[in-house]
Formats: sequence, structure tokens, C-alpha cells
Amino acid sequence: LNQDADLFSDQIKSLRAEIDGALSTIDLPSRPEYLYTPIRYTLLGRGKRLRAILVHLIGEALGADREDLINAALAVELLHSFTLVHDDIMDQDNIRHGQDTIHEKWDESTAILSGDGIYVVSQLVISKIKTKTLSAIKAFNKAALIVCEGQAYDKAFENNYDISLSDYFLMIEKKTAWLIGLCAELSGIISDQTEETNIQLRSFGLSLGRAFQIQDDILEVYGDVETVGKSLGSDLISGKQTILTVLAREENQEEWLSSWKNIKKMETQTAILRLRDYLNRKNIIEKAYKYVEEYVDKARDKLEVIPLRHRDKLKQFTNIILKRVK
Amino acid sequence: LNQDADLFSDQIKSLRAEIDGALSTIDLPSRPEYLYTPIRYTLLGRGKRLRAILVHLIGEALGADREDLINAALAVELLHSFTLVHDDIMDQDNIRHGQDTIHEKWDESTAILSGDGIYVVSQLVISKIKTKTLSAIKAFNKAALIVCEGQAYDKAFENNYDISLSDYFLMIEKKTAWLIGLCAELSGIISDQTEETNIQLRSFGLSLGRAFQIQDDILEVYGDVETVGKSLGSDLISGKQTILTVLAREENQEEWLSSWKNIKKMETQTAILRLRDYLNRKNIIEKAYKYVEEYVDKARDKLEVIPLRHRDKLKQFTNIILKRVK
Repeated sequence: LNQDADLFSDQIKSLRAEIDGALSTIDLPSRPEYLYTPIRYTLLGRGKRLRAILVHLIGEALGADREDLINAALAVELLHSFTLVHDDIMDQDNIRHGQDTIHEKWDESTAILSGDGIYVVSQLVISKIKTKTLSAIKAFNKAALIVCEGQAYDKAFENNYDISLSDYFLMIEKKTAWLIGLCAELSGIISDQTEETNIQLRSFGLSLGRAFQIQDDILEVYGDVETVGKSLGSDLISGKQTILTVLAREENQEEWLSSWKNIKKMETQTAILRLRDYLNRKNIIEKAYKYVEEYVDKARDKLEVIPLRHRDKLKQFTNIILKRVK
Repeated sequence: LNQDADLFSDQIKSLRAEIDGALSTIDLPSRPEYLYTPIRYTLLGRGKRLRAILVHLIGEALGADREDLINAALAVELLHSFTLVHDDIMDQDNIRHGQDTIHEKWDESTAILSGDGIYVVSQLVISKIKTKTLSAIKAFNKAALIVCEGQAYDKAFENNYDISLSDYFLMIEKKTAWLIGLCAELSGIISDQTEETNIQLRSFGLSLGRAFQIQDDILEVYGDVETVGKSLGSDLISGKQTILTVLAREENQEEWLSSWKNIKKMETQTAILRLRDYLNRKNIIEKAYKYVEEYVDKARDKLEVIPLRHRDKLKQFTNIILKRVK
């Protein structure tokens, strides 16, 4: 079993290298530099490429055409990258994947325009797909609009203490989960599967995506202390809704708000420890982890559409989500 | 002939009303309001709809399917609208078509996200086209990338006194002309014309688009005094390259820069009169108008691909560009 895990981990690394390679060799003009230099800078950044990897794993399992697979994976990664560039402006985040964001390194105009450019390039790439081209394009852009809706909820919910757990789930479904759902659906489309299969694939991705975002929220507070130290403040301080704050408010809104008011004033390392202490004491972290497990299980239950001999790989992929560290 | 002109003017009005109607009834969800309220606000604004009208005129002349025509016209108008929303943030323009821009009425995050949303909606609309769908989508997104390149040149050229006339023409070809070229090309594509015809249609639109942008630059200074009074400063003060400044620099860089330095300090109405005086005295306005006429003529020369009985309408359309007032 360990050998299996090693093999899988090697495959992930080699897929990531392949996707990085494809991203770095996308055929883009060199001028105007104002547009293409920041686009190249972004595409050469260190992303985890989890979405593109998922497209590859499912597409390979279902026998997709190799070239279509590369284009689908690339298009999804570009769509994701476009949303990050624009979200980082909106949220004033200055670091992404260990490097300055575009609006930080250049300025906001440059970041707006290169984000637009990356999205346009994603359209050019997705329309290169040869199998079920139009279905692929339609699913792709439907997802893009839903991601915009998710980001809109994310912004509209900032600092709103009335946001319920179901509001939160609506937001993360659109902001994060749908794009991961698209990865799975798209692999089905380009493998010429039935609509029924594609919907089940999407719902696998949706569940996995929910788990992914909840895990992300947890890692904001419970990740490696040094890393969290730098980024605590980012989401929580800007008043974003996360699984932890929503559950904490649901458990006892008054107590949470008064504790959080104090914690916010503390020096970062102390604040994290105090925050963890609160969330542990109230069993909130436990509840949050249960959601991660629940959604990973739900995702796994949808894997019967994947041929048996490939299914284990996909299960191992869901483990990456379950156990990932920031 | 006057009767013809009246009939044409009525047709333009009715097309504009039809396009406004189609824009106002695009099927969009109502929530999240953060995304869709500003999108609706923008689409209900008073645009001239010249691009969508051009799609209709050519598509009707070439016998395009009615529904395809409406979708092509809408998609182009949405693409144009998306670029305006983002350009207005980059250029800090606060008024567009007589109403506050999104970033002025709401904020920059709202404007970035609604611009993105409008572009995604344009993708959903363009992919509804039934005739030569994939060709239409590809031409559409190729144009979208070129428009981004044009905006990049526009930003990169700001306050750069070394920009030549040919740099200027490169910039306006991409920033403005290509989208008008797309309108013509797209009408050809959905009318199932040969590639040769579509290229000629595009080159009609490209010439017309160049004339349009040069005329726009002229109207910044020579339009109705009241209107210009409010907007002088916008493009010129922010150091944009316009046909007038580029020609003035080419004629005598030193004299122009020292005059412009003085003019900029004056009260707006006086500044405009002094500016006009300078440009008249140096024959710059005359040269600029010659370019408008030259490109309108070039456009008209491409009209032989339009059936004879429809050709006159298209000629009348080029007159709108030639004689338009701001």
C-alpha cells in the first residue's frame, strides 16, 4: 500500500510538471508587454494545479483524447488563475503562491487587464477541444458565471454577522466547489460520456470542492504556525465568512463576538493560539472536520462511474484534499 | 434622397430600441444582487448600440438567421460593455453614457466583478448561435484578446512623447477598430459566407473603426463646447495618445509641448478655444479629418460583398460615423 501511495505521489508530481510545462508554453505574443508580461509571470507561478490534475486523472480513467485532456486541464487552470488575479485585487491580497500578486508588483489596472486576458486565453483554449466542443464550452462558461456569483456572495457577506451555515454552503458551492465540479464534468464530456454520468461526475467534484474549501478555512487557523502567522488576518481579519466563524457564531454568537474582539487585538502568534483554544473548547474544530470527512465520503460514493481499476487513484486524490497541509 | 435618409434614420432608431429591449430582457438571475444589480444597471444604460446595429444591417443584407443575428448583436454589445466597465476603472472615468460608472456608484471590486460577469454572459450568448457556432466563438474571442492588447497599448502609451503615428494606428486598430471589424465578420460568419467574404467584411469594419476612433479623438476637442468642457481633461489631461496630440507632436514636438503646458493650466473653456486655435493654425485638424475621410472611403470600397440593394444602407451607416457628433 505504501508503494501504491508512492507511485501515486510520483504520478501527481509528474502531472504537475506536465501542466506547468503546458502553462509555460502557451502560445502567447510577447507584445504588448503591458498585457503579456504579467500574464506570463502569473502562469509561471507555483500553483498546486489540483484542478488540472483532477481533469487528467478522470479523463485518463474514461479514455479521453490526450490532446483534449491537455486543453481541458489547461483551460480550467487558466479560468482558476483569472479568478485569483481579480479576487486578489478585490481582497487586497498581496501574496499568492509565494510571489507578489500582479496588482502589488505592477498596479491595479495591469491586474484587471491581465486577469481579463487570462480569461480570454482560457476561451481560446477550451474552444480547441475536438470532442463535444460546444458542450464543453457551455459547461465551462456556466461554471465561470457561477464562480463570479460565488465571489459576489463572498464580498457581500463580508462582516455580516447574520450569515447562516446554509448561506455559507451556498457561497462555497459557487465560489469553490463548482469549479472542481466542472473539472470532473469536463473530463466526462470530452470522454463522450452520457449526460447522466457527467452530472454524477460533477456532483463528485462538487462534494470534493466543498470539502476542499472547508479544509482551506480550517488551515487558515490550524495550518503550520509560521504560515498561518502571516496569513491570519487575511481572511478572518477582513471579515470573511469561514466555516469556523460561522459555526462559532451558531454555537454562541454573543460569546464568540466578544472573544473574537479581544483576540483580534493580540499579537498574531498569541491570537492564533487563543483562537484555536476557543474553537477546540467549543468543539467547533471537531464539527468542521466532520464536514470535511462527510463531503469527502459523499464524493467517494459518486466514484462508481469510474472504471474499477482507476477508482483507487481517484480515492487517493480525495485523500490529498482530506489530509492536505497549507 | 432626404426621404431615404429619414427612412434610414427611422430604421436605426427602431434597431436601437430592439437592441435595448434585448439587453434589458437577457435572462439573468436576480441574486446575488452584488453581481447582477450593477450588471443590469449597466446594460440598461444609454449606449449608441452602433456595433449591434452594424451586425444587424450586414446580417440582414446577407440573409442571416434572425435569432442568430440577435445573439451575435447582443454578444458584441456585451463584449463592448465589459471592456467599458473595466476601462473606466483603469482610466478613473466616472461618467459613461450620462450615468455614474459602476466603480463610482458602487466600488472597484463591484466593477471588476460585474465586468467579468458581463464578459461571461457574452460567452453564453455567443455560444447560442446555431450557424457556424465554433467559427463565431473563435472570431469573437480572438477579437476579445486583441481588444485587451489595444487597451494595454493605450495604458502603456500614456504620457509617452515618443509614440509615433504608426504606434497610434496600431493602438486604435486593436483598441477600437478590431471590435467593429468583428461585427462585420460575425455577420458574415452567421450568414454562412466564404472565408474570403468574411475577411473582406472584417476589413470593412476595421477601416470604419479607425475612422470612428479618429473622429472620437477629434470630438474630444471639437465637439459641442458644453460637452467637451466637461470631458476635456479626461483623455488629454490623463496623457492619452490621440490623433491630435500625435499629429501636433509630429508637426513640431517642442512647440506643441510648450503650448500644451500653458493650455493645460487654463480654465477649461479658454483651454479648448486656445487648443482649437493651435490645431487649426497648424492644419492639424485638417489632417485629422483627412484620415477620417480616407478610412471611411476605404471602408466603402469594401462594400462590394454586400448585395447591391442593401449597399446603400451600409453607406448611410458609414455616414453616421463620418458626421457624428458627440
